[in-house]
Amino acid sequence: MASVGFVGLGVMGAPMAGHLLRAGHQVTVWNRTPEKCEPLRGSGATVADNLPDLAASCSVVGLCVSRTEDVLECLNAMLPSANAGTVFIDHSTIAPEGAVTCHELSEQTGCHFLDAPITGGSMGAQNGTLTIFVGGAEQVYDSVKPVLDSYARRHERVGGAGAGQMMKMANQIAVAGALLGLCESLAFAERAGLDVALAREMLATGAAGSWAFDNYGPKLLARDWSPGFSITNQRKDLHYAHDSAQRIGARVPGSDLVNDLLGELDAEGHGEWTTAALFELLSRGKQR
Amino acid sequence: MASVGFVGLGVMGAPMAGHLLRAGHQVTVWNRTPEKCEPLRGSGATVADNLPDLAASCSVVGLCVSRTEDVLECLNAMLPSANAGTVFIDHSTIAPEGAVTCHELSEQTGCHFLDAPITGGSMGAQNGTLTIFVGGAEQVYDSVKPVLDSYARRHERVGGAGAGQMMKMANQIAVAGALLGLCESLAFAERAGLDVALAREMLATGAAGSWAFDNYGPKLLARDWSPGFSITNQRKDLHYAHDSAQRIGARVPGSDLVNDLLGELDAEGHGEWTTAALFELLSRGKQR
Repeated sequence: MASVGFVGLGVMGAPMAGHLLRAGHQVTVWNRTPEKCEPLRGSGATVADNLPDLAASCSVVGLCVSRTEDVLECLNAMLPSANAGTVFIDHSTIAPEGAVTCHELSEQTGCHFLDAPITGGSMGAQNGTLTIFVGGAEQVYDSVKPVLDSYARRHERVGGAGAGQMMKMANQIAVAGALLGLCESLAFAERAGLDVALAREMLATGAAGSWAFDNYGPKLLARDWSPGFSITNQRKDLHYAHDSAQRIGARVPGSDLVNDLLGELDAEGHGEWTTAALFELLSRGKQR
Repeated sequence: MASVGFVGLGVMGAPMAGHLLRAGHQVTVWNRTPEKCEPLRGSGATVADNLPDLAASCSVVGLCVSRTEDVLECLNAMLPSANAGTVFIDHSTIAPEGAVTCHELSEQTGCHFLDAPITGGSMGAQNGTLTIFVGGAEQVYDSVKPVLDSYARRHERVGGAGAGQMMKMANQIAVAGALLGLCESLAFAERAGLDVALAREMLATGAAGSWAFDNYGPKLLARDWSPGFSITNQRKDLHYAHDSAQRIGARVPGSDLVNDLLGELDAEGHGEWTTAALFELLSRGKQR
């Protein structure tokens, strides 16, 4: 069978490509920093010299890079050499309108594109339990389900071109609200002189409870801001969400607020901290 | 044994008083609107003619009224006739500084006070599964545990005078964030043309998930804003949270934002709608 390509071997992409190998796919990888390809070469992947070579040898190509411009750059490097019918599956979180452009560029050259952003974090990538929101044509989606099954617990077509990214934006907006509720409430509790660990535990079990309370709470109590989902990445996503909201006339004041607050930490040089560091900012109170 | 008094037989108070009766306590009740006492009289409660009479016949008095001024008014009506050592347990959500005043007034007359706001909603009251945040002296709290056990699944002393209300404020701040995440994300999804039911279901199971997604989501999809926890009550709580935050120098921009947004619905005369109606507001988008 033709090779499955994978472009972008970061914290998410590397384990995803590993799952493709374990699922029995013939896998060809490429990464901007070539060293990151070596562990996968050791596991049986072919390492492409460049993107045009990778595209020429694959019928399906997964991408997991960073920003809209990165996806467009990779796609433009691959489309000229890609065989007709090649399906590009972009797992990056990018602007929905950028995804629509990717669909158009791909279709113009006889290829196909799916915007397929992921949630589930680095643990989800490692355990192969990601959730994927897919935007694109139904028959294209149907044709790559076995690929998605390799690393996702769940994937769902949520609409046409760009719909996957729109759903991811909705997800990030909801994540921002839950993060704000967690960090603002516990910072308030701390300033009120309450036992913050008790507050986290009691609030988590009631109407204030959330995935964020359960999963970020312990790290927050330890004031451990070591990399998880970074402030830089969350701000990137909320920036895309803001632009999309402007375009469709949606109101996203909570998401904008979280972006601004995280921007205060970003301006201090803490962009790589995990987003729960919003607690660190808010617990300083108003005296700054 | 001396009677347990209960003042305020609303949506929360009436079932709480019912649980006291079922637990075998001798119960005396009073309510501003006397008709609301009748079902409890039928279940075996004594109905007091007035607050001074109730206070004179009880060693423990639960209150579940509305605002700070209501609690102070009831307490001032009861303290002159209360026996020394009477414990007043206030289950209303009021300003933490108002609760401190209640503690002081009670101690000055040889009585005791606990601020003991509840969470768990009307279902929690009906099922006797409330959670109670208690502020006050430890030995006073210990003395009324059997009373609290009647209607709470969990009660916990979280600190001294006012600490129970501070914890409730923290809870309401977290609830506001989770509500915002739910309503803003699904309003965005709707304006983006996505299937909102699918969005609710997919987002609920990941990092965006929350009690609000699970419990308000279905009502939101049905655009059913019939009374639950009302906009008026949430705004009352967030107003107290704002004032407390000012006093302790905490930053609560998310809670303030939710209060402002709910204020838009309140200004339209929808104060009795349930708080998930925030979706109704946001789904109108920016064209208003």
